[in-house]
Amino acid sequence: MSGSLGSTTSPRVAALCGGIGGAKLALGLYRVLGPDELMVIGNTGDDFEHLGLHVSPDLDTVLYTLSGRADPQRGWGRADETWNFMTAVSELAGEDWFRLGDRDLAIHVLRTQALKAGRPLSCFMADAARRLGIRARIVPMSDDPVRTVVDTAEGVLPFQRYFVERRCEPQVRGISFEGASAARPAEEALTALAGPQLEAILICPSNPYLSIDPLLAVPGMREALVNTAAPVVAVSPIIGGAAVKGPTTTIMTDLGIERTSAAIAAHYRGLIDGLMIDEADAAEVSTLHITVETAPTLMRDLNDREILARRALAFAHRLASMQAGPRRVRA
Amino acid sequence: MSGSLGSTTSPRVAALCGGIGGAKLALGLYRVLGPDELMVIGNTGDDFEHLGLHVSPDLDTVLYTLSGRADPQRGWGRADETWNFMTAVSELAGEDWFRLGDRDLAIHVLRTQALKAGRPLSCFMADAARRLGIRARIVPMSDDPVRTVVDTAEGVLPFQRYFVERRCEPQVRGISFEGASAARPAEEALTALAGPQLEAILICPSNPYLSIDPLLAVPGMREALVNTAAPVVAVSPIIGGAAVKGPTTTIMTDLGIERTSAAIAAHYRGLIDGLMIDEADAAEVSTLHITVETAPTLMRDLNDREILARRALAFAHRLASMQAGPRRVRA
Repeated sequence: MSGSLGSTTSPRVAALCGGIGGAKLALGLYRVLGPDELMVIGNTGDDFEHLGLHVSPDLDTVLYTLSGRADPQRGWGRADETWNFMTAVSELAGEDWFRLGDRDLAIHVLRTQALKAGRPLSCFMADAARRLGIRARIVPMSDDPVRTVVDTAEGVLPFQRYFVERRCEPQVRGISFEGASAARPAEEALTALAGPQLEAILICPSNPYLSIDPLLAVPGMREALVNTAAPVVAVSPIIGGAAVKGPTTTIMTDLGIERTSAAIAAHYRGLIDGLMIDEADAAEVSTLHITVETAPTLMRDLNDREILARRALAFAHRLASMQAGPRRVRA
Repeated sequence: MSGSLGSTTSPRVAALCGGIGGAKLALGLYRVLGPDELMVIGNTGDDFEHLGLHVSPDLDTVLYTLSGRADPQRGWGRADETWNFMTAVSELAGEDWFRLGDRDLAIHVLRTQALKAGRPLSCFMADAARRLGIRARIVPMSDDPVRTVVDTAEGVLPFQRYFVERRCEPQVRGISFEGASAARPAEEALTALAGPQLEAILICPSNPYLSIDPLLAVPGMREALVNTAAPVVAVSPIIGGAAVKGPTTTIMTDLGIERTSAAIAAHYRGLIDGLMIDEADAAEVSTLHITVETAPTLMRDLNDREILARRALAFAHRLASMQAGPRRVRA
């Protein structure tokens, strides 16, 4: 893919986003905002090399979701996918614990080729997004490698081994992000987060420990949230004491964290101005020492995604007007 | 794939082989011989890197053909193939002039991974053959890179650019084999060619200029044919002044070579003991200064392949008995 200059328009909204749940809200935002008004800052902590190919699961989920190519049932990978490559890999005794679909494989092969040629991940993803007709910017948190590793009762496991191969079964003792301290944050993301035009920063309902923490571990990212003039809203991934998908509550239990939105609020303390929680958890509101808004946060269809996006943006605007005047102090 | 010791049985027959036409005869030989009695020495001159993947078209054609996985119509690639990867590559503006099927892609990805890890091509191909249930040995002519390049009226083109992208349209001025002079020949092939148990060496009806010459350009290969005690038989790829498939006669015309089996005999002069030509060219027999046998060489079905294999082996045995006693001098 040939390079090109990115859009010079500053985004109105920035979304910090992991995989499936986060991408759903990102799609809602993309649909209710103008086409050039959204920047998605994506997690690369679960990137890994598989069969010699550079796989970026979270970035690709965002890419496929925003371009209308995501598989509606699985949430990850592409719609109308076929698996003939994997069948042939198994036949040749190649590693087949992580499944790559035939259509999906194209981006991994082209990305591997691009990175090998010295092209930054961010440039490759920008080109891919453009080719798939996406006008939002999808920005990897860093062009440098950051790798989420999970310390478990069975030893330290790379994220995908823990998540896909072991299906989150080994008990989690801790999570760390190899390479994060040396990683340079995406310049484009820092610029957007500091921009005077920015109206809201949303932390999507992704796994805080596995999908958002790696992003915040990149030097400069946490500071950018602390120092931004825009309101920062997190949407809690917890609904009635459970997460919709993925290992969020498994990990919370393993780490001895209460499976509540209060725990999510505590996790993001100092970074967010408001927390959006599900209506099912309205009873928690009085226990949270932060501005809270309840909304239906389960996103079953496109309409749900758009409604939640509108509610989150309205919440952010309300927070901004509440805090107009003296510089706000975050909860 | 895990490594393992190769078969220690010495082959009874060795076949020098390029792509589609050669693989047909190799399959015939494989079926009429005992399962461990055949070694196919394959051309890697048309190997190339595509989309960052190491593609070995001729070796894979042999692999798929011997394992019953080749597409019966195209001759190359796999049966029941799908093309969703290529569709997605095109969508992302990746290079799509050379098409890799979804199933076929597995061997390219795994081979690239193996080579990157320092594993020799020959070990990878031996494992792949075993995994696909093939008991013949498929030996690349060398583990070192040899690249066929075609000097044309439009400049020097890597082989696949000339063959696939340009469909053999630019006029050929010459053909060379980059890296050949420094390439080490496959040890296993040299051992087999020098082995006292070897009953025949067959040069398959592959393109002499593009498929067999690169093989002969690897130091030691030509000498191995000259010095072997076994009879060497070439099967001419020419039938009635034309080649069945591929650019053989196009190249002969471009290079000012007559499109006859006599020209093929001249090309292999000093290397072969006998030439098998098609019945359609029986009139040429008297003009050839070499022992010739005619046979139906067009291989439309499995039966044709087996018949030609039997005829070629019988011819080799006849040559051997003719030359019993004093060391033969080759035509």
